[in-house]
Amino acid sequence: MSIEKKHDLLFKALGHRMRREILDLIKDAPKTTGMLCEALPGHDRCTVMQHLGVLEKAGLVVVERRGRERWNHLDALPICEIQERWIGPYAAHAADMLNRLKHSLDEEEKLTS
Amino acid sequence: MSIEKKHDLLFKALGHRMRREILDLIKDAPKTTGMLCEALPGHDRCTVMQHLGVLEKAGLVVVERRGRERWNHLDALPICEIQERWIGPYAAHAADMLNRLKHSLDEEEKLTS
Repeated sequence: MSIEKKHDLLFKALGHRMRREILDLIKDAPKTTGMLCEALPGHDRCTVMQHLGVLEKAGLVVVERRGRERWNHLDALPICEIQERWIGPYAAHAADMLNRLKHSLDEEEKLTS
Repeated sequence: MSIEKKHDLLFKALGHRMRREILDLIKDAPKTTGMLCEALPGHDRCTVMQHLGVLEKAGLVVVERRGRERWNHLDALPICEIQERWIGPYAAHAADMLNRLKHSLDEEEKLTS
């Protein structure tokens, strides 16, 4: 698959709030589809599974089957590749430092205002 | 602006191939709108400016006016924030290492196949 085709799928997947919320939910530890449905009340299982399908196609979710359970893991590699495309490994470090500096300044501003 | 509203604009902006191409073009050095139009043959100035507008709204392009010229700069901060949301500064380092390892293995595979 070309990088452009991959990035079409990736940004389509990340373009939806509920899909971003699913990624937030599995960021620290994988979750079963049942756990995700519980954490997303007001959405039926079918909707959650459709969104998981889009995330899986984009390479952001890897499914591990254990018996009858589907464990959904975050695969962060496509996210690293976004940074790599426009920042590169060397500039990424500098960008990270600037980002931390910005956060410190924001914090300081909050404290002094 | 809420983080979700910001990420809606960000991923909408990154979801289009031509806008990603514009970011590729200004990655290493800023370019004037005229330079971008020259680098993107087959697209009129109006289309290029519309895409630049979407990128500017998403915080990915910062415009610097010098006389009659518009210099378009890449602002990589929103891209860092994607990584921060789902990887975090500490895991980012591990993810970067894994990514390099993957590239080395891919290179090795190319050499031995």
